[in-house]
Amino acid sequence: MKKHRDILIAHCEKEAGNFLSKIENLEPLFICTIGNTETAKIPEISAAGKYPEITDYTPAADVELLFYGECKCIDGVPATPDGIPTPALITLSALNLADIPVFAVSGGVKVKPYAPFINLRGEPGEDIRTGKAVKNVEEVIRRAEIVGSNFSKIADYLVIGESIPGGTTTALGVLLAMGVDAELKVSSSMPVNPHNLKIQVVEEGLKAAKINFGDLKSDPVKAIASVGDPMIAAFSGLVIGSASRIPVLMAGGTQMTAILSVVRALKKDVLENVAIGTTRWIIQDKSSDIRGIVSQIGDVPILAANLNFSNSEIEGLKAYEKGVVKEGVGAGGISIATFLKTGGKVSSEALLREIEKNYRKLVG
Amino acid sequence: MKKHRDILIAHCEKEAGNFLSKIENLEPLFICTIGNTETAKIPEISAAGKYPEITDYTPAADVELLFYGECKCIDGVPATPDGIPTPALITLSALNLADIPVFAVSGGVKVKPYAPFINLRGEPGEDIRTGKAVKNVEEVIRRAEIVGSNFSKIADYLVIGESIPGGTTTALGVLLAMGVDAELKVSSSMPVNPHNLKIQVVEEGLKAAKINFGDLKSDPVKAIASVGDPMIAAFSGLVIGSASRIPVLMAGGTQMTAILSVVRALKKDVLENVAIGTTRWIIQDKSSDIRGIVSQIGDVPILAANLNFSNSEIEGLKAYEKGVVKEGVGAGGISIATFLKTGGKVSSEALLREIEKNYRKLVG
Repeated sequence: MKKHRDILIAHCEKEAGNFLSKIENLEPLFICTIGNTETAKIPEISAAGKYPEITDYTPAADVELLFYGECKCIDGVPATPDGIPTPALITLSALNLADIPVFAVSGGVKVKPYAPFINLRGEPGEDIRTGKAVKNVEEVIRRAEIVGSNFSKIADYLVIGESIPGGTTTALGVLLAMGVDAELKVSSSMPVNPHNLKIQVVEEGLKAAKINFGDLKSDPVKAIASVGDPMIAAFSGLVIGSASRIPVLMAGGTQMTAILSVVRALKKDVLENVAIGTTRWIIQDKSSDIRGIVSQIGDVPILAANLNFSNSEIEGLKAYEKGVVKEGVGAGGISIATFLKTGGKVSSEALLREIEKNYRKLVG
Repeated sequence: MKKHRDILIAHCEKEAGNFLSKIENLEPLFICTIGNTETAKIPEISAAGKYPEITDYTPAADVELLFYGECKCIDGVPATPDGIPTPALITLSALNLADIPVFAVSGGVKVKPYAPFINLRGEPGEDIRTGKAVKNVEEVIRRAEIVGSNFSKIADYLVIGESIPGGTTTALGVLLAMGVDAELKVSSSMPVNPHNLKIQVVEEGLKAAKINFGDLKSDPVKAIASVGDPMIAAFSGLVIGSASRIPVLMAGGTQMTAILSVVRALKKDVLENVAIGTTRWIIQDKSSDIRGIVSQIGDVPILAANLNFSNSEIEGLKAYEKGVVKEGVGAGGISIATFLKTGGKVSSEALLREIEKNYRKLVG
């Protein structure tokens, strides 16, 4: 089918086909879920900013980019230390081409966007090495649940993405606390995945919180509170609140597995109505293993947008083919939604041309 | 028609009929727009709280009531000095009976709800006697416009209400600054309308800002900034952003006319797609004149929910028939939307029974 041409199925083929049939004629709504964690400032752990301290601004800047087509709280756009731009460029391009409505939800940020966002009264997260990473997890989940429930009454289906630097490390924390073996399996925004550093950071956090692998299998709230991040709390609540009524495409890479694990513990039934939507760069990544994590949690399909930047004239985009960035701000999932909503009229190539146009305008 | 049985048409009969035909088979989305103004603390100006200082909590408490069926930031529910409860009781009852989705948008509040709300980064308003009532009006309008535009892509039509104590006085300020003769015409939450006090307060504000009647006919941003409130900014932006695409029922009393005046100055065309939805208590009020204000602005229909509490066994509700409270938190407009959505199955009487049930539970 034309509109599925650019969508790869990476896991649970039957469930993936069912999910695609459910959503292919529906109108998507995109939610960008943001948060900050001090964990992002551990040197060499995240490339979601030119230097550790500026990662505080990345989620806010990503949201501004989606709403205004430019950032307000920083000059230019968020970029890696090597200058490779934020995947929000992909998201922005897809949202515009398919005229998809967008909202932002904050689980707890250090820098607030100069743009409208749904405030859940969560606070930014601490360094997970403290073992006390996130405050008021239960309240944030409940408030997000209300928001998800209300969106589910007006939207056909949701595409939920995230922006939180350091998020794969906190995801690893939650996964290990909940007994999902994710060591050496979470992905990275860097071309060389700093697995050992991430494991060391998580182990320090687990130790500080006196948690062994799997201790919190049935206590996701404590897992997030100890070694997670505020985005995971907000995102999980959104899924729980909405997916009993409408399909939810969880738009992201291996971080989505931590949310799956939380959702399974809190409201298992809704897993039937969710899929992960990511990028080809994630499912083909040799330094991570999203299927290996998901298969421990449930029969949740993994779809991937067949984005390919290898023929781009722009070096800053070609770098994505070398494993930089890979995913974020719902880039893969919203690309899938765009292919579907436009009946394939917006192809992977057409999307790349729009991304290149936005790159030239915003990055130069 | 059965579903129109409890809806009164108070102004612009033809336009009202057209508007009702447009929305009668559509699904509504309710937005509660909140703000605070120090103006509310001027003694004897507002009954939206038991005493002036507690009016800071009223908007947050109203939002909590809509989301949770109970308030979090105060005990009980907001009430007048005589103990007559908030019109949010009506709104809550209607939303629940018709299963209408709800969101909250803050133009700038002193007390934040313990509930999810869309943050526009506005600040609470000052006493309008300073002539410097609201900061960042333009930014708040623009951010609200983005929110309205995104909601208009997923909702069939919007019902927008407000909660801001002191709001009729700030509305009077904006109306006079923009050259709409509203003296002795704005309504009040009190049975005896303190017109002279309101006029005196507004005149002091206009004088402080060096504004004469009508000076700001074409400058609504300055009118709000000088003698308005943050709710008016947010509400106006929501209307501007949405009403070019979908119908908008502006749910409130005479405060809606200040918003109409702002909208007319910023994006006149959209007035064709709006109506005011209020209560019978407002259109039959002898101490105010909503038609007399609207007719100076444009051919905007006024619809009213035929709510009648005179046969209620509950004194705190019967008081509404004596002119207390009258309107607020979108009570009239959302009642109309509920009659329509349920095809008349929820009648004015059925709604009253639900309100009485909630009264007994929440007020005792």
